[in-house]
Amino acid sequence: MTPDEFRQAGHALVDWIANYRERLAAGDYPVQARVSPGEILAQVPAAAPEHGEPFANVLRDIDELLMPGITHWQHPRFFGFFPSGGSLSSVLADMLSTGLGVIGLNWQASPALTELEQGMTDWLRDLLGLPSTFSGVLQDTASAATFVALVCARERATDYGAARAGLQDRACPPLVVYTSAQAHSSVEKAALLAGFGREFVRAIAIDEDFCLVPEALEAAVRKDRAAGLRPCAIVATSGTTATTAFDPIAPIARIAQEERLWLHVDGAMGGSAMILPEYRHHWEGIEAADSIVVNPHKWLTTAFDCSLYLVRDPEHLVRVMSTNPSYLQTAVDAKVRNYRDWGIPLGRRFRALKIWFALRADGAEALRRRVRADIDSAKWLAAEVGRTARWRCVAPVTLQTVCVCHEPPGLSGSELDDHTRRWTAAINDSGRAYLTPAVVAGRWMTRVSIGSEHVSRESVEELWRIMRETASAAATAR
Amino acid sequence: MTPDEFRQAGHALVDWIANYRERLAAGDYPVQARVSPGEILAQVPAAAPEHGEPFANVLRDIDELLMPGITHWQHPRFFGFFPSGGSLSSVLADMLSTGLGVIGLNWQASPALTELEQGMTDWLRDLLGLPSTFSGVLQDTASAATFVALVCARERATDYGAARAGLQDRACPPLVVYTSAQAHSSVEKAALLAGFGREFVRAIAIDEDFCLVPEALEAAVRKDRAAGLRPCAIVATSGTTATTAFDPIAPIARIAQEERLWLHVDGAMGGSAMILPEYRHHWEGIEAADSIVVNPHKWLTTAFDCSLYLVRDPEHLVRVMSTNPSYLQTAVDAKVRNYRDWGIPLGRRFRALKIWFALRADGAEALRRRVRADIDSAKWLAAEVGRTARWRCVAPVTLQTVCVCHEPPGLSGSELDDHTRRWTAAINDSGRAYLTPAVVAGRWMTRVSIGSEHVSRESVEELWRIMRETASAAATAR
Repeated sequence: MTPDEFRQAGHALVDWIANYRERLAAGDYPVQARVSPGEILAQVPAAAPEHGEPFANVLRDIDELLMPGITHWQHPRFFGFFPSGGSLSSVLADMLSTGLGVIGLNWQASPALTELEQGMTDWLRDLLGLPSTFSGVLQDTASAATFVALVCARERATDYGAARAGLQDRACPPLVVYTSAQAHSSVEKAALLAGFGREFVRAIAIDEDFCLVPEALEAAVRKDRAAGLRPCAIVATSGTTATTAFDPIAPIARIAQEERLWLHVDGAMGGSAMILPEYRHHWEGIEAADSIVVNPHKWLTTAFDCSLYLVRDPEHLVRVMSTNPSYLQTAVDAKVRNYRDWGIPLGRRFRALKIWFALRADGAEALRRRVRADIDSAKWLAAEVGRTARWRCVAPVTLQTVCVCHEPPGLSGSELDDHTRRWTAAINDSGRAYLTPAVVAGRWMTRVSIGSEHVSRESVEELWRIMRETASAAATAR
Repeated sequence: MTPDEFRQAGHALVDWIANYRERLAAGDYPVQARVSPGEILAQVPAAAPEHGEPFANVLRDIDELLMPGITHWQHPRFFGFFPSGGSLSSVLADMLSTGLGVIGLNWQASPALTELEQGMTDWLRDLLGLPSTFSGVLQDTASAATFVALVCARERATDYGAARAGLQDRACPPLVVYTSAQAHSSVEKAALLAGFGREFVRAIAIDEDFCLVPEALEAAVRKDRAAGLRPCAIVATSGTTATTAFDPIAPIARIAQEERLWLHVDGAMGGSAMILPEYRHHWEGIEAADSIVVNPHKWLTTAFDCSLYLVRDPEHLVRVMSTNPSYLQTAVDAKVRNYRDWGIPLGRRFRALKIWFALRADGAEALRRRVRADIDSAKWLAAEVGRTARWRCVAPVTLQTVCVCHEPPGLSGSELDDHTRRWTAAINDSGRAYLTPAVVAGRWMTRVSIGSEHVSRESVEELWRIMRETASAAATAR
């Protein structure tokens, strides 16, 4: 494709995206894709074309082949999972990143990529109210960041054992990782990837609000130590996936310091709320964390992938993650950050542009306004649920997620679970809204997660009408 | 940013990128950025703006603030590292990916994302001449893919030890990983991240062409087994970073099968050449590999990040990598691929669009033409080097990388090293071209890596003039 062809095709695609977003904002699409497994793949030719074709054909197939298979995360009635940032400013930023086509494998390979990343991670850190003792890097996901944290924990606990026998040092007592049963699935995955083994990952008890109980952590650590094991890391969550519960950081940090545990805080979702000073009490004690991850690509509008990983001791991170082959060395290495040593991949996109564009185009105040509006909508919905017969919030509404259960008379246990999943699936299948069911305290409930790009109070009100209507119909139809 | 503002800003940015590429193709920019450490960061305001500003300001700052700090990877005289794909079709694809703003955390979350990825990884597998026994997934980088491979190897060797004590099972003999000293730095990094420990990573001897010696591998495996260790994985390289050497797959695969080692083939760079049937002898025996990684984002024009990871047994991969919390379960899980279980991150971009756009806009034949042209240019340069006094190729030219040394009379050892690094740095600092120096066989040499988006025979000829001129001047100035 020549620059001239790109000019023409690019203008057409920009218009396509603008039109798509306008139609989305108007609620024009069914939220959930309406295709069966294999339906899209069956339309993809078996072999790659030998010769190019006009871009108009591709544009046509976006509409005809792809769009039926898209579940619209930026739809005003998408309330599934957690929101995924979709600001149009960051769409432009990603286009520039790819258009420049530079790779940040060391500072010299594009100083602007590295230094804007330093600047933008500082901006975000400060917006979140964190002290300047933290240094930041952008990674792809919280899954990767949490893995990096656990590897750093492992290495600190073994005095850099990776340089010797790694986790295969038979003289070293087994290391143990602690988290709560409400932690994201990526925490256990990260621990297993790092070699700890499931037997050495402890799910610490939670209280009735789904927050980790510090006393239970303390007891577990002592028990393990008494058994000859070596407690290594605690992963606390700020905004759990099921209910956005906040584990209490201050008492956990105190235990971490006393017991020499690495404290990693998974604030992938809830960390974003810390741009609001009135929510920072949830982070009391955070300055003692060894590492923190917050995903601007969730609630702070920057497009996926853009995960902020903050550490108190970058020297330790670099020592654990670094490689230094001859072909990557430059004369200025001692004076610069080489972000390849701050994560897993060597190659790195120019991700900082997404934060730069989003904050310059829209401003920090717009982010705070958006986060506040989503929280207000969640509170409104929770109040409606609370004053409606047969409906119940099954968890405290801390942020923008409302966990609800509709309880028709006479239903309990697995029958109630079936009902919950049935009405939720009925809404999703209708295309009118999209919700994620999940299990807490052993029972299915339905999460309403507010925060997609085009969400508004009106779309939440519309959802609530749909929920009541659909759940009642499902109860009657039984 | 509203859709209307996006329309206007997007058109301006499309034009900016088209103009940038035209100026690049004309060789208008100094290749290497000309800023000092800290110079860009000093111009970034200390705090994020509270309020938005016109996009024209951002466009202006791209030129004024960022561009001086860009090293132009798509420049016709960029010969550093390995090329990074920069086709304009894949710029459009990335824009669409971000514009849609969907996340592939399970099939239902956007069936088109998953199924186009199945289709496109099949297209690539077939273009590379691999049998349909391989199944593919797109990951961010070969670093991540190689890590995943080593974790799969670890789990196969321990009968899924992660579900028990992981690498901390004191009853299990230590596992050993084998590779060559010419392997990419990401291989050792992956092994250390996975917990093996440096004492259990063996650098197998290479021959005079920098290829792993199978007999040395066999001897190392037997020695370790005799010492009570458990040989676990061999990482062979197809196209090493320093010289694009190919480890001999067939004899290595035979040893791997006999010794029950996981065979991972790092074809990040060299694998791309397999789109040319006349190069497939380098891959003889490849069908026995357990896993292969090839980076279309290097030489096959798709923009970073787009790394193809192929496995023979996806069931094993999924069992090792999967998580299944309630909030990710859907009714169709048994019938579909959930690619989150094929790698580290849960969230996934719509990367397959890059391959789809690139192949439809340009066609497979254009890729082959491009790869052949780069190899021809490399052969031309090697011939020039070979017939020029004081110049020498220090490694066989297998693909598109030419490793050269300029040897003025009377210089050897560290003085010759200094000379090599001096003239290479002089070229880089001049902005006329960009090259990467590296060490092979204990001595510095200079890599000429051909394959950037706008490279041509003319730019290689121009480079050769610059090299002779600069190296001679450096020799004289001593």
